[in-house]
Amino acid sequence: MEDPPPPPEPEHHHRPVRFGILGCAAIARKLARAIRLVPGATIAAVGSRSESKARRFISENGLDGAAVRAHGSYEALLDDPGVDAVYAPLPTGLHARWAAAAAARGKHVLLEKPAAPCAADLDAILAACDAAGVQFMDGTMLMHHPRTHEMRNIIADKKAFGDVRMINSVLSFRVSDDFLQNDIRVKPELDGLGALGDIGWYCVRAILWAVGYELPTTVAALPGSVTKNDAGVVLACGASMRWAGSKVVATFTCSFLASLAMDLTVVGTNGTLRVTDLVIPLEERSAGFSVVATPAMAELAVGWGPPPAEVAVATDLPQEALMVQEFARLVRSVRDDGGRPEGKWPAIARKTQAVLDAVKASIDKGCEPIEIMQGLNN
Amino acid sequence: MEDPPPPPEPEHHHRPVRFGILGCAAIARKLARAIRLVPGATIAAVGSRSESKARRFISENGLDGAAVRAHGSYEALLDDPGVDAVYAPLPTGLHARWAAAAAARGKHVLLEKPAAPCAADLDAILAACDAAGVQFMDGTMLMHHPRTHEMRNIIADKKAFGDVRMINSVLSFRVSDDFLQNDIRVKPELDGLGALGDIGWYCVRAILWAVGYELPTTVAALPGSVTKNDAGVVLACGASMRWAGSKVVATFTCSFLASLAMDLTVVGTNGTLRVTDLVIPLEERSAGFSVVATPAMAELAVGWGPPPAEVAVATDLPQEALMVQEFARLVRSVRDDGGRPEGKWPAIARKTQAVLDAVKASIDKGCEPIEIMQGLNN
Repeated sequence: MEDPPPPPEPEHHHRPVRFGILGCAAIARKLARAIRLVPGATIAAVGSRSESKARRFISENGLDGAAVRAHGSYEALLDDPGVDAVYAPLPTGLHARWAAAAAARGKHVLLEKPAAPCAADLDAILAACDAAGVQFMDGTMLMHHPRTHEMRNIIADKKAFGDVRMINSVLSFRVSDDFLQNDIRVKPELDGLGALGDIGWYCVRAILWAVGYELPTTVAALPGSVTKNDAGVVLACGASMRWAGSKVVATFTCSFLASLAMDLTVVGTNGTLRVTDLVIPLEERSAGFSVVATPAMAELAVGWGPPPAEVAVATDLPQEALMVQEFARLVRSVRDDGGRPEGKWPAIARKTQAVLDAVKASIDKGCEPIEIMQGLNN
Repeated sequence: MEDPPPPPEPEHHHRPVRFGILGCAAIARKLARAIRLVPGATIAAVGSRSESKARRFISENGLDGAAVRAHGSYEALLDDPGVDAVYAPLPTGLHARWAAAAAARGKHVLLEKPAAPCAADLDAILAACDAAGVQFMDGTMLMHHPRTHEMRNIIADKKAFGDVRMINSVLSFRVSDDFLQNDIRVKPELDGLGALGDIGWYCVRAILWAVGYELPTTVAALPGSVTKNDAGVVLACGASMRWAGSKVVATFTCSFLASLAMDLTVVGTNGTLRVTDLVIPLEERSAGFSVVATPAMAELAVGWGPPPAEVAVATDLPQEALMVQEFARLVRSVRDDGGRPEGKWPAIARKTQAVLDAVKASIDKGCEPIEIMQGLNN
């Protein structure tokens, strides 16, 4: 017997998710564009510390000044009844306060990464979202690129790829002297995790992704990998991770002081996967990776093959728009259909944050190994 | 004023270097082919533990049984007055004895890697070579590929590449069950360093190469990276390195238990270099690497460029033949022109071995950081 045809989508499914942008950071411009690319999402309001800043953001980003409300405070944006969800690109140090406040007012929360300065802060945010029954998602755009799903299929292929053994991620971009003096990401009270939070976040997320989100049991910062500024904010660091009882080892290094690199290399028992523009693909329409499956040496070991296969994955929408699309879909499910928030995204964020906490703790303890509690809260 | 034309090469420069192959390991077949590819080199003799094995090697590798002498012991090969230089692919545990013996009999020494089980053994070999005035070189073929020189030019380009900041190397190949039971590389008395010696050697060499052969000050094995067999031989491991007073951090992982990977990634302040077939190029005639110079983000950080440039470096001779060619050139300089042995190769071997020693010591001490003495002997 065939399945009956699905019922026609109810009218309210076409009602877009109305976003409020909470803070006018540079990254908000990218997200404003992304929201506008998604049919099921719209920008309803922008909130900044002054109304003029919010207005300027609206005009500079080609938004409709008649339709998009400008709020002169974060509170005003959160009080806006025409906002379903907030996108919050605030400095990390402000996340706990404002993301929790947004949830308490019934707003769904799309929160820029790093999600919080520490797991305890993120727990408070997640508890607020949970209590309010709103969706939480962090702003790790790469999770939503179809390339990421394609790479997951490769790694899951036991025949061609086998079991994961070694993971390495290198994330860096060289910041300007002005950044080193003035950017929020070098200020202890605003983004206390520095490069660890800003880009190490991706290394940790990618490593967790590669192992199916199993938390490592031990994390250790790499001796000599840590550079801090005078205020103690991390400008470069690295760490290794182990999973007790497994043969997996992961390493990463991240830096504000080296040229652009966005590498993830995963070596399995049968194959190898490499990507070098993990966080921001070189181009919007297509992103590549390279894969070697069951390679073998030539006679006399004078060569080997097959050579790496270059895989290109096309996408109509950029990854940040796909993120907005997925978030909006989950929000509609809660708002319109009485669905429950999707637990996967907060869980992944929480695990990423737990590992960042451990790396930070190891840095603070002279690269001592740190055990990660494998509790229910993880 | 123009330089005068060089004098004609004396006749004896055309007299080839006569190699004796000391031991019939699988790798010797590759080197036998390489020696035959080099005009200035010839195979004069093969020595094995039995004459029949030596004869079989000669016939199986297409050598001229009438011209190439078969010796039934290593001693006999070393006593052969028609041998200028030995290529020794013996188990590492036998290097100190036989390489030193070869030097003592005035033979130049091309020694397979790892050069020795420990730096003390290598020091004995190098002292013997020094006392006898013979050339020493280890068998790290990749050093002689023109790609390696080309990559060096990239890294040395202060404008396009800047200063080295992060280095990662991943070296692995998945061995068979038979290898895990029977290969000399898993036997403590034959190749006690296991994967660390066999492939970690390349990681360490590549890292040293990337920093201009400056010894790291501290080396630490990575917690969780070490797998040993029942006899205590390392099957997989990893380490990080630091150079006091610099911002360079290097990591590597190597494994007999993961699929083929031969990666080196070097990130500088202005550029990035990546190679994924470092040790054995996919093909003999051409080898590639990828380089990014002074990359920049697109507007709104929705992409970046320029994309990595793929560089292909052609070579007429495979890298192992280039190694033989360079070694033979140095031997001729000593043999025919009263030149002194080239000190660069023993020095690089010694530094590589010093770092391997430190990694091994760290492994044995539960991943404790190990300081490397920066003495004259290094």
